[in-house]
Amino acid sequence: MDNNFDVIVVGAGHAGIEAAFASSRLGLKTALFTIYLDKIALMSCNPSIGGPGKSNLVTEIGVLGAQMSKTIDENNLQLKNLNHTKGLAARITRAQADKEKYRLSMREKLEMQENLSVIQGTITDLLIENKKVYGIKDELGMTYYAKAVILCTGTFLDAYYIIGDVKYKSGRAGEKSSVDLPKSLKENGIEFDRYQTATPPRIDKKSIDFSNLQKLESDTDPRFFSYETVNNNYKGRPTYLTYTTKKTIEVAKELLKYSPIVTGIVGTKGPRHCPSLDRKVLNFPDKYDHQIFLEEESEYNDEIYVNGFTTAMPAFAQEKMLHTIKGLENAKILRYGYAIEYDYIPSYQLKHTMESKVIEGLYTAGTINGTSGYEEAATQGFIAGVNAARKIQGKKEIVIDRSEAYIGVLIDDIINKSTPEPYRVLPSRAEYRLSLRQDNTFLRLLEISDEIGIMPKEVISYFRKVKLEIDEEIKRLKSIKIYPTNETNEKLSKIKENAAMTSPNTAYEFLARQEINYDNLHEFIEVKELDKLTKEQVEINAKYDAFIKREEKQIENYKKLENMLIPDNFDYSSVTGLSNIAKSGLSYVKPQNIGQASRISGVTYNDIALLIAILNK
Amino acid sequence: MDNNFDVIVVGAGHAGIEAAFASSRLGLKTALFTIYLDKIALMSCNPSIGGPGKSNLVTEIGVLGAQMSKTIDENNLQLKNLNHTKGLAARITRAQADKEKYRLSMREKLEMQENLSVIQGTITDLLIENKKVYGIKDELGMTYYAKAVILCTGTFLDAYYIIGDVKYKSGRAGEKSSVDLPKSLKENGIEFDRYQTATPPRIDKKSIDFSNLQKLESDTDPRFFSYETVNNNYKGRPTYLTYTTKKTIEVAKELLKYSPIVTGIVGTKGPRHCPSLDRKVLNFPDKYDHQIFLEEESEYNDEIYVNGFTTAMPAFAQEKMLHTIKGLENAKILRYGYAIEYDYIPSYQLKHTMESKVIEGLYTAGTINGTSGYEEAATQGFIAGVNAARKIQGKKEIVIDRSEAYIGVLIDDIINKSTPEPYRVLPSRAEYRLSLRQDNTFLRLLEISDEIGIMPKEVISYFRKVKLEIDEEIKRLKSIKIYPTNETNEKLSKIKENAAMTSPNTAYEFLARQEINYDNLHEFIEVKELDKLTKEQVEINAKYDAFIKREEKQIENYKKLENMLIPDNFDYSSVTGLSNIAKSGLSYVKPQNIGQASRISGVTYNDIALLIAILNK
Repeated sequence: MDNNFDVIVVGAGHAGIEAAFASSRLGLKTALFTIYLDKIALMSCNPSIGGPGKSNLVTEIGVLGAQMSKTIDENNLQLKNLNHTKGLAARITRAQADKEKYRLSMREKLEMQENLSVIQGTITDLLIENKKVYGIKDELGMTYYAKAVILCTGTFLDAYYIIGDVKYKSGRAGEKSSVDLPKSLKENGIEFDRYQTATPPRIDKKSIDFSNLQKLESDTDPRFFSYETVNNNYKGRPTYLTYTTKKTIEVAKELLKYSPIVTGIVGTKGPRHCPSLDRKVLNFPDKYDHQIFLEEESEYNDEIYVNGFTTAMPAFAQEKMLHTIKGLENAKILRYGYAIEYDYIPSYQLKHTMESKVIEGLYTAGTINGTSGYEEAATQGFIAGVNAARKIQGKKEIVIDRSEAYIGVLIDDIINKSTPEPYRVLPSRAEYRLSLRQDNTFLRLLEISDEIGIMPKEVISYFRKVKLEIDEEIKRLKSIKIYPTNETNEKLSKIKENAAMTSPNTAYEFLARQEINYDNLHEFIEVKELDKLTKEQVEINAKYDAFIKREEKQIENYKKLENMLIPDNFDYSSVTGLSNIAKSGLSYVKPQNIGQASRISGVTYNDIALLIAILNK
Repeated sequence: MDNNFDVIVVGAGHAGIEAAFASSRLGLKTALFTIYLDKIALMSCNPSIGGPGKSNLVTEIGVLGAQMSKTIDENNLQLKNLNHTKGLAARITRAQADKEKYRLSMREKLEMQENLSVIQGTITDLLIENKKVYGIKDELGMTYYAKAVILCTGTFLDAYYIIGDVKYKSGRAGEKSSVDLPKSLKENGIEFDRYQTATPPRIDKKSIDFSNLQKLESDTDPRFFSYETVNNNYKGRPTYLTYTTKKTIEVAKELLKYSPIVTGIVGTKGPRHCPSLDRKVLNFPDKYDHQIFLEEESEYNDEIYVNGFTTAMPAFAQEKMLHTIKGLENAKILRYGYAIEYDYIPSYQLKHTMESKVIEGLYTAGTINGTSGYEEAATQGFIAGVNAARKIQGKKEIVIDRSEAYIGVLIDDIINKSTPEPYRVLPSRAEYRLSLRQDNTFLRLLEISDEIGIMPKEVISYFRKVKLEIDEEIKRLKSIKIYPTNETNEKLSKIKENAAMTSPNTAYEFLARQEINYDNLHEFIEVKELDKLTKEQVEINAKYDAFIKREEKQIENYKKLENMLIPDNFDYSSVTGLSNIAKSGLSYVKPQNIGQASRISGVTYNDIALLIAILNK
């Protein structure tokens, strides 16, 4: 076997997979290592992909050529359009995956990928010379060489499995921890910290009494993550909603003394946006009706994921609490919930390209960077794979900014912001979220995707064609006037009461009216045959015109700051007037531009004004 | 959750599954524990089921109501009738399984099974009082109670993973070892010994050059393991045959110094009938062309099992040796071969019912008893499950003897014979193998199956009907005379040259002729519409009549000895004339009858004659 590769990816979870796909699809000879071939693409926690912010990430990397969007479109049990009621521009997708099929399908895809070798192996050492990585070693003493190494080791570094007062080394329940690799990294100057995360119990579908539970139907006409999905085996399975009861909270309070959070067996911080039930009871002792979603994990088995019931309480306590929930009185636990405590690399040690600042050629992506979520992991993995490849090929690396995509928000955030818990992407973290919609992803990332070069040329051409059609249609609508004639107002009143026009509008302004859309616009003006995507974009642009324009202004200002570059070796300590906290933060992160500097914790408006003045000199 | 069960099964491999199916199908409330739900029914080593002796076992337990035969019939990639050339009576089936589908399908079946709970848990303790088991404890501190506990822990007890000079605690590559349970068993008086086993590397199908390899086609009209299989998704995939070369053996000899067998890192004995390549080279240094079968593992992935290349040599050595084999010059290893060293319970501590002699209510089945093979494991698991259930129900336990089935040969052998390596069933171990054919299994085990009561009544009735039809047809054929007329001899000569009759025969004798079968018998006498099974049985009986009759005589004699019971508390030490070696063997094993006594290592014909004389007094 040839042990020389261009790129080596360590870990075949959601980050590692995308890193390996990206690098090999860009023509680089790539190796993907996994501790266990049978666990490739395993969804370790919930069976879902998407939701606020995450959905945008999946579609974004999909437009750039990542795999996740297609595989989830083809291997789901349920798809839902969320935020329906919040208006057209807020709509996002959430899928419930068939975990088994997702895993099997991803492995198949990896095996079919040209330039890619998948190898079972446990990596123990990085080969580093002059602060530059040139390969890896595995526990069997094998050496593999590469120009870049991408670490996507998830929660496995020095990981401990915790449930009640039971705690031992384990990467996931029943799997081995990676003990030697973090040592090797530490010896090479990488700094670590520890996080924890937890997962709820899984129960047997047959033991649930569904008769009085609320059934949540799947969407019949779902929005897919990938623009390329044209047909799929859509299952449209329901989920069920139940609630914790007063009794649950009573029992929980009585048993909280056994919670590893309370006993201190788990000392580190966990994901705030996905709190355990223990945490919810501690923080909101008076709330008793927490939502519990019962989600199917696969058509191949009867496991139900008890979403909302995350806990690492002792087994007996999990059982006791679970049986106080409506419908779960006789639920049989198949696997108990548990927590994992693990090493992560605080990402101030990371460049925006996903390359380490400490070791050249080393990239880290996913949970190892202190993030949470399959989508966040996949995004980082994809960007790391692309940039590792581009650097080797001598091409300019890709950095996507906060105004272009959630990808930019995610990467910029984890580099600049120290969060006390695993980072999760959220719409509230995006300053320009009206622009970073899921629906317009293909427009936003068209040119970057073309530049990256993974997407087939015909897809790029199709996107270009639609973009042109949108521009032309908007121009056309703006050139058409609609007058408040009796005839028009009669038609309007048939669509909606009291909807009469009082003054003339362009057709574009007219389309902004709540009651007007492409289904009824033809009653007023001539409407051409248009692509479905075109109609959606024109409508959203018309309806949100003012808001979008305002955001575009903000983005312009933001770009100005982003373009004010700070020299690599800028000496903050000698700047008089900068606060000490700003000095230490800036020296630590070494921002590349004023924009990034402004987002570092502790850096104030005054500090930024001072820096701009100095740089302008 | 109710923690009270009738039967608890520990381990969900091939033994544990059958134990759990048997017990729950017999109406007992059963729990099946597994360290890892995702690994239920995993084929840890080769992807095949069946072959000499093993095929008989699978069909036998299938007739009694076990699951393996059906699941392999439905989830295979290839089926082959072996021993075609050795005559009708020697035919057996070998299947190549789709490992992934087999696993998923078994789990589905288990989940659908009434009275059965499958639970993920690592068992640490047995609850025992007065040498009687009443439950188990798991690592999470949960307690589960039962009237019987069946241990089917495979290679996991105090297991070490070994490859080259790498050795650490692990149950299978990447999985955890069971450390506490063997301690608990030892404290309760169970004796252990250690064995090892090994598995070859798996390679990437795409990296093999098939162009000059011998293609072995699947059978087009395969014989299934289960009589109930009427239709299936038969794939008929080929395997490929290649050979080691002179270069392989040269390289192997040069690298043997790194073999864990040679370095002594593996100190224990491994399976003799499935030797590692290291062992083959050590034992037969001049042979260079060892067969290597390249077997697909699943339609879901590109893994190829390198059958014949078992080794735990260091990774680099495996690679170097592999690349000397034709077609594998550029083979990419996906997983390296490795060895596992583990605790097993020498089965002189076992009764023929599979219950422990040391602890009442405790059963052990499969690799834990020092056997090797999925089929051997499934057989023991099934019998343990049936007998645990029957004992609880107050029914007479089932003991199948050596003349009735390979099941009997297997269980009797492991109890009476101490083998220096993991036990594997082989036709040569069966004294009455002409009677223990795969084809006549339904006749042999019909009454026992009815007694056990898992098989549906309609299947039993069908078997009875066929049995009657066979008896009647044999009677009918015996009553018909065929004379050596010119007409008859003319017809015969058309079928085969020089096949003329010289004296009259019954039709039954006539059917014994090599050239006559049910396809041409109608040319000579009237033939009724008969079940396919009937035709096969009548033909085999006719052709092997003399041999079968002789074997029946032997079985009669054997049964006489089996029926000479030895009292439980018989004191061998006081028998003058018994050799010391016989005394110690007999006292150790405590045989239940003279037949069993005669099969104990070290017990001679003279010892048996003496015992018979004493018992007759």
